Amino acid sequence: MSPDLVRDVAIVGAGPVGLFAAFALGQIGLSCAILDALPDPGGQLAALYPEKPIYDIPGRPEIRADALVADLLAQAAPYAPALLTGESAEALAGSVETGFTLVTGRGRTIGVRAVIVAAGAGAFGPNRPPIAGIEAYEGRSVFYHVASRERFRGARVVIAGGGDSAVDWALSLAQVAAGVTVVHRRDAFRAHEASVAAMRADPRIALAIPYQLAGLEGADGALEAVRIARIGGGEERLPADALVALFGLSTDLGPLASWGIGADAKAIPVDPATCETARPGVFAIGDVAAYRGKLKLILTGFAEAAAAAHGVRARLYPDRAFAFEHSTTRGAPTPAPPVAVRSA
Amino acid sequence: MSPDLVRDVAIVGAGPVGLFAAFALGQIGLSCAILDALPDPGGQLAALYPEKPIYDIPGRPEIRADALVADLLAQAAPYAPALLTGESAEALAGSVETGFTLVTGRGRTIGVRAVIVAAGAGAFGPNRPPIAGIEAYEGRSVFYHVASRERFRGARVVIAGGGDSAVDWALSLAQVAAGVTVVHRRDAFRAHEASVAAMRADPRIALAIPYQLAGLEGADGALEAVRIARIGGGEERLPADALVALFGLSTDLGPLASWGIGADAKAIPVDPATCETARPGVFAIGDVAAYRGKLKLILTGFAEAAAAAHGVRARLYPDRAFAFEHSTTRGAPTPAPPVAVRSA
Repeated sequence: MSPDLVRDVAIVGAGPVGLFAAFALGQIGLSCAILDALPDPGGQLAALYPEKPIYDIPGRPEIRADALVADLLAQAAPYAPALLTGESAEALAGSVETGFTLVTGRGRTIGVRAVIVAAGAGAFGPNRPPIAGIEAYEGRSVFYHVASRERFRGARVVIAGGGDSAVDWALSLAQVAAGVTVVHRRDAFRAHEASVAAMRADPRIALAIPYQLAGLEGADGALEAVRIARIGGGEERLPADALVALFGLSTDLGPLASWGIGADAKAIPVDPATCETARPGVFAIGDVAAYRGKLKLILTGFAEAAAAAHGVRARLYPDRAFAFEHSTTRGAPTPAPPVAVRSA
Repeated sequence: MSPDLVRDVAIVGAGPVGLFAAFALGQIGLSCAILDALPDPGGQLAALYPEKPIYDIPGRPEIRADALVADLLAQAAPYAPALLTGESAEALAGSVETGFTLVTGRGRTIGVRAVIVAAGAGAFGPNRPPIAGIEAYEGRSVFYHVASRERFRGARVVIAGGGDSAVDWALSLAQVAAGVTVVHRRDAFRAHEASVAAMRADPRIALAIPYQLAGLEGADGALEAVRIARIGGGEERLPADALVALFGLSTDLGPLASWGIGADAKAIPVDPATCETARPGVFAIGDVAAYRGKLKLILTGFAEAAAAAHGVRARLYPDRAFAFEHSTTRGAPTPAPPVAVRSA
């Protein structure tokens, strides 16, 4: 079966380092597809702190994270990378000799000759409370973020968590819900004081403190009650139509652990000269790549991207010498033809 | 004797990588002085191609070389590096234990605790023709560039060389000199065709082809004649007041070869994890630094600058753990006090 998409290289992760890898590959004549589980390119820069200024990008005394992402996209654009956002990397089969097939979280297959993993700290996801069977409710009556407040109109809502998100959404959902109960382990919130005071004063908001989530009751994904356990002993039952669990984001290398590239939970060892992993043809760069003396800086990842691009080339064309040219000699990147395949 | 200038670190070379090293050191609280034999900071970017666009600086799809230099200077400015231009690095004495003393080409002494060599391809200088005793005439009647055309008014001028500089200066000096003879090894010039044709047609310009320089005659730095040898045999004597030898620029690591840092003519081997050389406390970054897999890219030098800054810190404070912070967390660099000592 032929793959849905064919490129020279797949880049796993569309953070700043992955985006620059697309440029570095383009410079030496290699095409690529970039996957990212997040809905937008830019990685942590786009997802966590788009409006924060960064001060240590060489030659940019101060630049907003989102502006840097935009510039990196523009720099890679002449090489027309296929950008597959909202699409995670799941399975990897094959080798340099046979070619690799990468299967995405949407079931798409990508045929490539090499892979560069630029996964940062891994895919972002919500911290899921350890409650048996919670998966059956997710997206129907259990949520890890609030996409639309209207969804909760008239509902009995349980919010779990003690940070800004929990407090802010309690205040917001109280205006439309039939009732809101905030479940938190202790009587202190990591949130703006004024918001916490407003929450405590709101008669539509009940506080279950010090409690934690213990279980769910319901059927076919429809929640009927949330069971909560008192810290120190005792359990209660809160009739509820929806649970919003706001325990922050976690990162996880997830399926990469099964790729045979030496990945543990947080890092992938590489040869720093080429950024190649233990699996020939699979490279790792940026925060996820580990070697002696490694600095987790964006600018270090940029250099690793260039090293990996050359490493890919040496792996794919071991007999072909590379005529090294500086960008000032080679001139401006020439636009590539438009890309037909994009994220569905 | 106390040194003329004291800093934590001396950076040898004010090219883009040396300038970024000043920023990287500043970020971890270390002060520096930057030396460069050239009259302006920026290295090759300023001296060879200030107006050329560069395409492979991460996040800068296209930037002129001189603009990049200006941005790097602005980025380092809050840390107030002492910038010593027109001042070469000559001798290095001392060690991490005793501290280092660096002696400059102007005889200034700089006391530092570590040194980062960012010398690129080495100091630029003219290719000097191999003629015994030529030094005695240099700057008085033998020149490697033309600073002022008026200097040659009424003089009998011999120009040696076959490139654009030789042809252009022959045409220009012919307008003021008593006569111009161009000495070149072969009857082909590496220069604009129109200029070569104009030179050949100019009755004030004689061509000595195929000849090369053989010797000088004169006394006390005043030239009387240039002896030239015909390729294949035979010698002639050209009465002359001035010789302008235009054989291009060469690069040379020069005195660094005697620093005990493992430097050969073109490169200095380093540990890529820290960029430290064979001499503890002396580091090398950028094009001059050599290790397995090295790419001679500016962006690679930037990452090496960060690695060297951390390497310096680990060398100077081996027992102190470094609380690693990202620039978005630490905030904007705060301006340092003004620098009192600058290049004389």
